[in-house]
Amino acid sequence: MPAKKILMLTGEFTEEYEIFVYQQAMEAVGHTVHVVCPDKNAGDLIKTSLHDFEGDQTYTEKMGHYFTINKTFSEAVANPGQYDAVYCAGGRGPEYIRTDKRIQALVRHFHETEKPIFTICHGVQILIAVEGVIRGKKVAALGACEPEVILAGGTYIDLSPTDAYVDGTMVSAKGWTALAAFIRECLKVLGTEIHHN
Amino acid sequence: MPAKKILMLTGEFTEEYEIFVYQQAMEAVGHTVHVVCPDKNAGDLIKTSLHDFEGDQTYTEKMGHYFTINKTFSEAVANPGQYDAVYCAGGRGPEYIRTDKRIQALVRHFHETEKPIFTICHGVQILIAVEGVIRGKKVAALGACEPEVILAGGTYIDLSPTDAYVDGTMVSAKGWTALAAFIRECLKVLGTEIHHN
Repeated sequence: MPAKKILMLTGEFTEEYEIFVYQQAMEAVGHTVHVVCPDKNAGDLIKTSLHDFEGDQTYTEKMGHYFTINKTFSEAVANPGQYDAVYCAGGRGPEYIRTDKRIQALVRHFHETEKPIFTICHGVQILIAVEGVIRGKKVAALGACEPEVILAGGTYIDLSPTDAYVDGTMVSAKGWTALAAFIRECLKVLGTEIHHN
Repeated sequence: MPAKKILMLTGEFTEEYEIFVYQQAMEAVGHTVHVVCPDKNAGDLIKTSLHDFEGDQTYTEKMGHYFTINKTFSEAVANPGQYDAVYCAGGRGPEYIRTDKRIQALVRHFHETEKPIFTICHGVQILIAVEGVIRGKKVAALGACEPEVILAGGTYIDLSPTDAYVDGTMVSAKGWTALAAFIRECLKVLGTEIHHN
């Protein structure tokens, strides 16, 4: 079987690691990751945010690396059937892109066709904007997102910051500190096998 | 065969992606990565740098995420034989840690025992500080490092920013934009096989 094709939903100020680590790790093992942002075309730059934990009650934000979008948004919207899974990266992108009807339609496609849905940190904010996606599901996210997970009919799982949670084919995690475990579980759901020789 | 154990050499202001993407991607597929910094212990934080390309003649630098060192430096120095490979991350760490005799001794160990050596961006600055490591080797690095690669008897390979170069078991790349290809080639050298089901 060939490698898989994953759609990553981002916005401006999406968390940089949740874009770059995920994309580069997935591409390193042969998968394709299309990273899209509403109204951006392949080759356009977006600014990203760097969310870190420096002893305050919540995260700090600095400017992250610029990211070069690699797929034109309208092309992904026109043909979501080409993707095997969707990944909602966190940071400050999810909060605003989730009100975009085209983003909602994309998420609905993966929900209705029962394809894997991956979410990290604030990424769950995108999922709760589409009726039914989170309902009855157990999902991890940044702790601050717990109230909206509950409102959407989901169960919030309070994971350690380095673990990932799997409910069926939905994989979730609290934030970028969990990316190794999160990617490992996504790979399992995608059917990727690793052997060490 | 079990997964491999990789030693990552960093300093303060090592480039954040060259730490995090590498470590998390390698851990996602089952390898162990010990990240060390001179005189730092497991649990200590280091500041990292975010090197980006924003239209200037060379990169910009901002503060990156804080990184939690996961292995005490003195323990790695005492027992380098436990590692299967060494990885020199770039950014501004290499420039100063390479004058540390203990870093030089670590690099010498991997060179003399003919274990794989991985280097990205400014990482090559560490390798050129140890006689013989680069001599006769073809190696990629940030373009600004070309003169020192030549002085050390190596051949500088001017790669595209998204490619990686393999010379025997030495894998090299120009910078973090190449991490997907770089990690892919490191996995091959380590004997990691990927199958998609």
